[in-house]
Amino acid sequence: MDKLYGGIEAGGTKFLCVIGTGPDEIVAEARFLTTSPERTLQQCIDFFLPFALRGELIALGIGAFGPLDLQPNSPTYGFITTTPKPGWSYVDLCGELNLALKIPVVLDTDVNTAAIGEHYWIKANRLVDPFLYVTVGTGIGVGVVINNRPLHGLIHPEAGHLFIPHSWSEDPFEGVCPYHGDCLEGLASGTSLAVRWNVHGETLPDNHPGWNLESKYLALGICNLIYSFSPQRIILGGGVLQHPGLIDRVRQQVSELLNGYIHSKLLSGSIDSYITLPGLGDRAGVLGAIALAATLEGESFVRAR
Amino acid sequence: MDKLYGGIEAGGTKFLCVIGTGPDEIVAEARFLTTSPERTLQQCIDFFLPFALRGELIALGIGAFGPLDLQPNSPTYGFITTTPKPGWSYVDLCGELNLALKIPVVLDTDVNTAAIGEHYWIKANRLVDPFLYVTVGTGIGVGVVINNRPLHGLIHPEAGHLFIPHSWSEDPFEGVCPYHGDCLEGLASGTSLAVRWNVHGETLPDNHPGWNLESKYLALGICNLIYSFSPQRIILGGGVLQHPGLIDRVRQQVSELLNGYIHSKLLSGSIDSYITLPGLGDRAGVLGAIALAATLEGESFVRAR
Repeated sequence: MDKLYGGIEAGGTKFLCVIGTGPDEIVAEARFLTTSPERTLQQCIDFFLPFALRGELIALGIGAFGPLDLQPNSPTYGFITTTPKPGWSYVDLCGELNLALKIPVVLDTDVNTAAIGEHYWIKANRLVDPFLYVTVGTGIGVGVVINNRPLHGLIHPEAGHLFIPHSWSEDPFEGVCPYHGDCLEGLASGTSLAVRWNVHGETLPDNHPGWNLESKYLALGICNLIYSFSPQRIILGGGVLQHPGLIDRVRQQVSELLNGYIHSKLLSGSIDSYITLPGLGDRAGVLGAIALAATLEGESFVRAR
Repeated sequence: MDKLYGGIEAGGTKFLCVIGTGPDEIVAEARFLTTSPERTLQQCIDFFLPFALRGELIALGIGAFGPLDLQPNSPTYGFITTTPKPGWSYVDLCGELNLALKIPVVLDTDVNTAAIGEHYWIKANRLVDPFLYVTVGTGIGVGVVINNRPLHGLIHPEAGHLFIPHSWSEDPFEGVCPYHGDCLEGLASGTSLAVRWNVHGETLPDNHPGWNLESKYLALGICNLIYSFSPQRIILGGGVLQHPGLIDRVRQQVSELLNGYIHSKLLSGSIDSYITLPGLGDRAGVLGAIALAATLEGESFVRAR
């Protein structure tokens, strides 16, 4: 049997766990509600442990909601840190799983992990660098792969919170971000759509003016990412992007906003292949976790004994 | 004698040329007005050629105004491309200098080169990554070092053109960017200060309300860079930042705008060492060009014969 890798997509509502070698070979899968850290992590451990004990599972990758401590020299390396999610502050995610499973564990943000998934498993994305994964769901997150590696830096990117132009006369909505009000996430996340229009965002009718605002705000954020990173590809994932036609509106607005400033065929004729939906659909995160485990073992967390 | 490296800071008004091994050993220096490409490049060649012919000069680094083609597999690799500067579109900067001097030539943007200079020559910056250099002069530019390398990607960063919030009621100025009007460069460059207040920006008195606007716009741009790159240090260079106290106002506004969202000691107590003026002053660019030549020889331009 091939060596197997474990992947966890650790989200605020559920933990999705898989065991396999990649998109074409998933040998086991489980999902657990995100309750207390003790209970949820024990459920994950119970799922993975038999494979680890048999020596089949050789490493575990985790993509988690943050903020996370990803600095190997930090005393809280591998922890979820200051999350507002009750009970989950300063949970030693990597340490607990490494201790129980006795295999290397590697952690990254949910969005970096989704970026790795799309970058690693989708052939067309393999040599494309920098590579960005933008997710627009309950919140907005941006994962970044540069020089074939997820970007961390001081903490890790938090580009859902970009400040963007907001015309109060055209759109008097104050935004939903508890930190910044009308940042990108405050104006364009699924939560923002729900609060603003009082419906579940994705169900707004096609001709609702909300979609114009939504595509404009997302395009402003994406232009800022283009100006900053000069990426070679941008994936737009998350539930809100599943609204039919939204990505086309975003592409068009990005072109209009850049206004010819960046000269590249990718931003004019070929923008449909420059800004794309995820090739792995909603499995980018958990498959990215497997790719993390398979490719970045050397840097993974192993508890000092 | 040590091996010597050449550096050129190729600007829109002058070309600064140096020969040496680093900040402590510059053996020759010259500056030429930027006139026609033929004339200006010939002046550079005449300056460097004797050192090259004697075998002392082993590589040349150039930091240039852009946009530039930095893709090694492109037919116009090493060219200035679509610049609006008359006569300088599609000038084969690397090719001409390599042909004449017969040494490897390496090119990057003026801001990436300044970032490399500060990152490479200032001890405190050496292991700091990602590392950003923001210059606020005639225009606004951002240089990026990630994983010890300048960031290129699709083209190269153009983060002077970030879209930022602009309250038309508080500040009815429409901005000076010919592409975007009120982007960061449109609202906060030296050109913007000059057009807006009808004086040379740096000479506005300390208590002029223009400095509040200036520091706020710069802080909005810097917050967006922090959210995107999660940098470990940001250098603020360029003529406008020489106004006494401006950097302090920017630091304070950055803290206020982030509003505690990013938890790091560097962004609270130590922000003075997180956002700093250039250690090399106005020599960051040309010393970065020498560092490029000294460290990146392996990727430099050598014309196929």
